[in-house]
Parts: sequence; C-alpha cells; structure tokens
Amino acid sequence: MLDLNADLGEGFGVWRLGDDEGLLDVITSANVACGFHAGDPSTMRRVCAAAAARGVVIGAQVGYRDLAGFGRRRMDIDPEDLAADVLYQLGALDACARAAGTGVRYVKPHGALYNTAAEDPEQAAAIASAIAAYDRSLPLLALPGSAMADAAHAAGLPFVPEAFADRAYLPSGRLVPRGVAGALIEDPYDVVARAAAFALHQCVTTTDGSVLPIDARSLCVHGDTPGAVYLAGEIRRTLVDAGVTLAPFTS
Amino acid sequence: MLDLNADLGEGFGVWRLGDDEGLLDVITSANVACGFHAGDPSTMRRVCAAAAARGVVIGAQVGYRDLAGFGRRRMDIDPEDLAADVLYQLGALDACARAAGTGVRYVKPHGALYNTAAEDPEQAAAIASAIAAYDRSLPLLALPGSAMADAAHAAGLPFVPEAFADRAYLPSGRLVPRGVAGALIEDPYDVVARAAAFALHQCVTTTDGSVLPIDARSLCVHGDTPGAVYLAGEIRRTLVDAGVTLAPFTS
Amino acid sequence: MLDLNADLGEGFGVWRLGDDEGLLDVITSANVACGFHAGDPSTMRRVCAAAAARGVVIGAQVGYRDLAGFGRRRMDIDPEDLAADVLYQLGALDACARAAGTGVRYVKPHGALYNTAAEDPEQAAAIASAIAAYDRSLPLLALPGSAMADAAHAAGLPFVPEAFADRAYLPSGRLVPRGVAGALIEDPYDVVARAAAFALHQCVTTTDGSVLPIDARSLCVHGDTPGAVYLAGEIRRTLVDAGVTLAPFTS
Amino acid sequence: MLDLNADLGEGFGVWRLGDDEGLLDVITSANVACGFHAGDPSTMRRVCAAAAARGVVIGAQVGYRDLAGFGRRRMDIDPEDLAADVLYQLGALDACARAAGTGVRYVKPHGALYNTAAEDPEQAAAIASAIAAYDRSLPLLALPGSAMADAAHAAGLPFVPEAFADRAYLPSGRLVPRGVAGALIEDPYDVVARAAAFALHQCVTTTDGSVLPIDARSLCVHGDTPGAVYLAGEIRRTLVDAGVTLAPFTS
Repeated sequence: MLDLNADLGEGFGVWRLGDDEGLLDVITSANVACGFHAGDPSTMRRVCAAAAARGVVIGAQVGYRDLAGFGRRRMDIDPEDLAADVLYQLGALDACARAAGTGVRYVKPHGALYNTAAEDPEQAAAIASAIAAYDRSLPLLALPGSAMADAAHAAGLPFVPEAFADRAYLPSGRLVPRGVAGALIEDPYDVVARAAAFALHQCVTTTDGSVLPIDARSLCVHGDTPGAVYLAGEIRRTLVDAGVTLAPFTS
Repeated sequence: MLDLNADLGEGFGVWRLGDDEGLLDVITSANVACGFHAGDPSTMRRVCAAAAARGVVIGAQVGYRDLAGFGRRRMDIDPEDLAADVLYQLGALDACARAAGTGVRYVKPHGALYNTAAEDPEQAAAIASAIAAYDRSLPLLALPGSAMADAAHAAGLPFVPEAFADRAYLPSGRLVPRGVAGALIEDPYDVVARAAAFALHQCVTTTDGSVLPIDARSLCVHGDTPGAVYLAGEIRRTLVDAGVTLAPFTS
Repeated sequence: MLDLNADLGEGFGVWRLGDDEGLLDVITSANVACGFHAGDPSTMRRVCAAAAARGVVIGAQVGYRDLAGFGRRRMDIDPEDLAADVLYQLGALDACARAAGTGVRYVKPHGALYNTAAEDPEQAAAIASAIAAYDRSLPLLALPGSAMADAAHAAGLPFVPEAFADRAYLPSGRLVPRGVAGALIEDPYDVVARAAAFALHQCVTTTDGSVLPIDARSLCVHGDTPGAVYLAGEIRRTLVDAGVTLAPFTS
Repeated sequence: MLDLNADLGEGFGVWRLGDDEGLLDVITSANVACGFHAGDPSTMRRVCAAAAARGVVIGAQVGYRDLAGFGRRRMDIDPEDLAADVLYQLGALDACARAAGTGVRYVKPHGALYNTAAEDPEQAAAIASAIAAYDRSLPLLALPGSAMADAAHAAGLPFVPEAFADRAYLPSGRLVPRGVAGALIEDPYDVVARAAAFALHQCVTTTDGSVLPIDARSLCVHGDTPGAVYLAGEIRRTLVDAGVTLAPFTS
C-alpha cells in the first residue's frame, strides 16, 4: 500500500500554478498551500472542496512568509515566530477543509522550509511544536532520517517518511542537492521505474549503484507542468497495474 | 449582566498598538486581530495566551486584507472572496486560541468591513456564511439593526448586539458617522454616564435629546491610547459599583 | 499615426501572466506593472530591458496595493495616501527603466484604479498630483472625457486619450460597463474592424448604431491569453497594411 | 568634520516607530526606510519633506522584503533578485525625495541585509550593482573593512565608512556580535565618550583595551526610544562643544 502526495493550490489571486484538477485524479494526498508562500483563501477553499469530493486527503503545505520568493528562500527566523507561523497556516487551512466537510490530516513543509528543517533541529522542532500544540495526532510528512523525523518523535507526533521518484539519492539516503548535476531524474521511464522500486521493493538505486532500502509510506509526485501531471498519471497506472494499492497513508 | 469587548493584538511584527495587557484587566471579551489588517501570528498566540490566563473570552476580529490601511479602507471585494478571507482568519485565530487551551467564541468584523457590512447585505452575508461554514454556534457581534444582524439571522447564527459609550446615536438608532461634528463623545464623564445608561436602563440619549431603548449585550470600549485604557477601567469600576455583573456574553 | 499600448509584467514572483515577449513585438508602448497589484522588481527589470531593446516605450501601470485582488477591487483610499502610492510606484519603475538605459515616459492607472479615477475627481486628482510632483512632462494615458482628463489638465500634465477596440461604447462615449451584456466585443474580425475605424476615421460605432468621433492617440490591446496576442498582432498587421504609422505617442 | 546618521521612517501604516521629528533635529543624514521591511509611501513622503526642510540629507535604507520580521531575518535571496529589490526601493524613495525638492544621496542597507552583506560578497555585490545601475555617484554607507566596502570599490561606487558609538569593537575592528555579552555599550557617558573619540581622535578602544584607529566619516546614532533621541542629542552637543563640525558627508 502506498500513498501519492503532491503540492496543490500553489497559485495566488489571479495567478495559477500547476494543474490542480489533473493532479487530484492521480494522487491520494494533497499538500495544499496555506497562504504564506502561495495559496489565497479562495483557492484554498476551492482546492479543499475538490479534494474532498474525490476522497483525496488534505495536508497543510506550510512555508515561510515569502510570496515574492514562493517560499524557496531560506530565512533565519526565530523558532517561536516560525512555530506561530506554522500554527496560523495550519488553522487557516483547517477552516477551509472543515468548510468542505473534512479537515487537515497531516502537515508537510514546503520549499526552503522543508530543506532547512531537514537539517536544522531548531526549525524542525518549531514545526513539530506547532503541530503538537494544534493536534498531537497529526502526522508530519517529510524526509526519512531528517531533523524533522527526530523532531516529530521528540514531540510525540506521528512521522510519515516520503520518497521522491524523480530525485537522485546518495548512498547515505540523502537526496543529491538540487543544482548538482544529476540531482533530478529526467527520463520518464526511469522515474516510473524508481517509483515501482519504492512501491514493490522499498528500495532505491543510489548514485554509486548500490541498492538502498527506503521505508517510505508516501511517494511525492510533481505537477507544476502538464507533462508532470501526465508522468504522475503514468506512475499511478504502473503501480496499480503492478498490484500496488494506492491509498492515503492516513487511512 | 453586561459584556465589555475591546480590540486587541492590533500590532504587527515590531510594531505595537494599544495596551493589550492593560485592557485584559478591564474587558471580558477580546476581539483579536487575525493578520489581514493587523496581528501577526506570534502576537496572536501571545494575546490568546494572556486572555486565556485571565478568563477573557476570545473573538475573531476579522478585516479586509489591508495592512497598509489597517483595514480602514472600504474594498469592493467579491463576496465569495470575502467569505474565504473571513474563514481563513477565523481558522488561523482558532488555532492560536486552541494552542492556548481555549478557542474562538465569536466573530466581530473590524474597521471598514464593520461599517460596510453594517449597510451592505452582500458583504454581511459573506461574513455570516463564512462563520456558518466553520461553526454555526459562533455568534456574530455587531451593531443592532444592521445588515449584519439580518445576515446572522438568515444564516442561523446567534447575533449579539453591541453598544458604544463614546459614539453619538441618531434618533434612528444609527451611529452619527465619524467625521460629522459630535460623532465622538469626548468628555470622559459623559462616556461613563452613557455606559451606565446602557447597562442599567438599556437606553441611550440620542442627538435630538430623545431617549432610545438599546438592547446591547456587550459594550465596546477602546484602548488604543493609555488614556483610553484608563477610561475603560473607569467604566468597569462604575458599572461594578452600580451592581452590574460583568461577564462574557458567551457565558 | 497611432500608438498601441498593452499591459505587461503582470506576473509576480514565480507566477506569470500573459505573453510579455509576444506583446513586445506588437505594441509601441508598454504599461509595466509596478509591484502593488502585480509585478515584482526582477520582472520589472526584465520587462524594461526587453522593451528598451525593441524601442518600445515604458509607462508606469500604477494600481491599488492589492496583490490578492490584482488591483481589480475599488478601494476607498485617502487621496494623500493614493498620491504617495502612485509616486512610489512611479519612482520604482523609473529606476528599473533607468537601469535599462531609458525611463518611464507616461503613466496609466490599472484596473479598479483606472475605473474609479475615471469617475472620481478626488482619486483622479491624487494620481495627477503624484505625476506632477515627479515630472510635470509625463503624460497621463487614460479614457478621454474622464475625470482623469480633467485632473491632468488641472495639474498641467499632458493627457493622452486612448481607445479600446474590444469594448462597446455608449452613444455618450462611455464604455459599456463590464458585466453588462455586449460590453466586450468578442468577434475578432469586429475587433480588428473597430481598430481600423479608430485609426483611419477616428470614430467608433456605438451601441445605438450611431457613429461617434473618438480622438484617441493610443489604442489599448490585450494580451493576457495567447489568442489575445495573436489578435493584437492581427490589429497591427491590418493597421500597417492600411498605411497607418504605428509609433509611440511620446515620439 | 563628521556626519551623524540615523534610521528614520520605520513605521508602517498606522504603526509608528521611533521619534522621527526628534532625530531630525540631531542628525545630518537620514536613512529612510523604503517600504520592504518598513516605511509606507505616505510616511516616506512625510519624512523626506521634513528632512528637506531641515537640510538633512536623505539616504535609502534598503532592506529585505520582510515586513513581518522588520528586515531582521537573513534571507538566502538570489543576488539578481536582491539587486532588483534594492533598485526598486532606491527609485521609490528617490521619487519621494524628488517630490520634496531633493533626492536620495546615498544608500545604507538595513538590519539583516546590512549584517549579511558585511560578510557575504554575493549579496554585497548585488547591492553595489543596483546602486551603480541607478547612479554611479551615490555612495554606499556601511561598515569599514566589510564585504560592502570591497563591493563598492569593485563597482566604482564611493564608499563611506561609519562607526557605532554604542557597539563594542573587537581588536580586529569588527563589531562584537549582538547577543554576545557586552556587545552593546549601555552606559550613556561611555557612548558619548566613544563618539568623541571617533570624532576627535578617529579611534576606538576595543574589547582588549587596545586603541584602534577608525576612519569613519559618519557616526550612526539610534533613535527608536525617547531615551535614545536624548542620547543622540547629547552626542551632538558634546561634539559641537568640542569644536567638531557636524555636516552631511555628501557635502
């Protein structure tokens, strides 16, 4: 059984990004942007309603307060302020989800916050403390082995490890940093094959050719281009054909 | 029995406005700004915690998305977008209140949104629909006889009428618009006397000298200057001395 | 001789809107968004550089401070604050244009500010006063017969009237308000024909069939969809074929 | 001859910070916030007019786009985006200064940008390139020996070194980082004495007791509390009494 998660609702006002409707037919969990790096309230309500209508589970895609930078710029933010920012976004999205007859079921940090909190115990702890203050049963979805995994455990939160079919892995289990040659797997057949390896064998082939066990309960797919939605659909079809049950990790 | 409400948490980032601590010792209900016209998440958490510690009830002070104008500029916003903005703010503050061991117990619009929605049925209905989508038991606190009262009733929401001790009333029960001479009652003895009239006799003397019955369950006091906090305290002392029980209207 | 103007640089951060490059090959004057309703500084520099490289003249597309509403929501803003907002945007874009070896050569309000200032003498005067405070030789580009025309004259600013090939005109010379049936001319042949009528005969056929003289020195074309850019190109080709000289009105 | 500079116009909308009027009677150069970390357009115009009326020179206090954090949080921003942000702010303030009959005469980065660009050659070069693109004659006012000094020289910009009377210096000439015990000189007599040492002897006593020559053409004074304005005035009086000519470094 595997979950497919993707980022949704990443427009703002008149501006759109990605094909939310297309992705909702592919994924089982939607990371919905909460207004700080993307996502206006009307979009949030619309995406929550569309997700709820399809039985796709809603998670809070929390980020830095940085619309101009789409949350992709690391910020040296005071942990207490970061915790408050996460709590605020979580509650705001939960209201939108509640109005759609459901609720936020998990949290996944976005962009630079995801990357920073994977390494920085203070920012990771701030995120975990905000979730715990809101609802200690909400899982944190993030990179296995990261500072976020540690912070979730320390805060008594469920932690859900995810994998990336289109990112190269180091033998250590870390992702090859973006910007380094080969960090992104661009061949679509390769991406689908790696998704299948995660799903069927719980493993990935790393940069030195070794096979690394990866215990991921969710697979992150991308959808910010029409081609990406098609590829996400191919992953879905391949996994289903191989007998993998696709379902939200929260079920 | 009467409730005293005031606006709190109206700073943003390094900027402060009003004496939140001082007011919390006077009032029974705190209208906490939710981030769109004022109020950053850290301030919201801090004010919620301080209110909870004193047993002061928390309400959502929702406003237009207009930090530069402090929500004091009327906006011709699409009702669906307004509803989403209100829902978003409500959920965000509820998360902060929840982290403080309590929750949002009512909603009061701020500034230009308050004034516009008092007259404009579309904006009033948008506010009511957002509250109803979140929690149909949350009261709307606003001007009696306003479009907001009608909208609350139409949406099946509790409506709580409030009165202003420092504003002049027309014989119709409407407030004299700000900017018109005499709109603000500036003499502190007058303000205290009018507060007592609301509390003890449920009435106000209007601009033509007639005495108008006003059925207000809450009295709005202002606190954006140190003098105002002192005046609010005088109102409190006078009412208590007169045997009025001050308590949140939600109790 | 006619000028073709269009809105450019209307993205924000990662978000794009319209085909700036495509339009720059069609138009002679670019209304570049200045950051309040759209347009981040990097986009502004890029668009200014691209416009300068093609000899397209740069104008400041100033708007309300409302990224979430794309400046399409009327705001009751204090005229002094509006003047300061316009001055700020004008200077910011001028810096970007200067870095591209040119400068801002005119001002055109955007969206709700355009519509409000067409009717409201106070907002119109605020815009004109800001331009005059910056550079009294900068023309205001707007609707002929509007409050903006009056305000420009009163402030001693040059005023440049523009026409719309895809909007229906009332016999009074006013535009049929958006939202009213028939407000938008949707048939592309019609749009091109009306553009030709403006350019060759300085007139437009109004809703009652009468022919109204229109003295426009610029024609506004739209480019927020790929189809719109194609249509703008058709207008250009038709006018050029008919012997109309297309050139910036500032030349 | 010495210049006294201070941060001004650091409010936003209804929110005020510091005593702008009080400081303008003390200083010779005003670092005016430009809207990204503080400073709305109306405040900017008001401060520019007040500075111009007193003959105080105006500089652009540029910062990160971070109103919620007052520009005090380091951001890993792409140098090209940072350069565009600086250029935008510089032009916006210059328009306000121009409307007040003067212009921006120098640039001083604020908060986390100041500290980051003191160490980070990329951010420093981005700031310098923006200034150079606008006006190669505008000086950069910053810490002597910093990466900003190098970047200014590389870009062909004038560089003006400043000193801090209320900050402790390491023997290397660096400031003791805030947060380290003793980083701030809190005794007012000490601050005044150090100001006099800078002005009369071009030196400072460092943390190990050694006397370090400091070639500063401007002294930064702080004014965000009433006490600070008084202290700034004391510095001014002491220097004037000692025969130091206080004048803008641009004269």
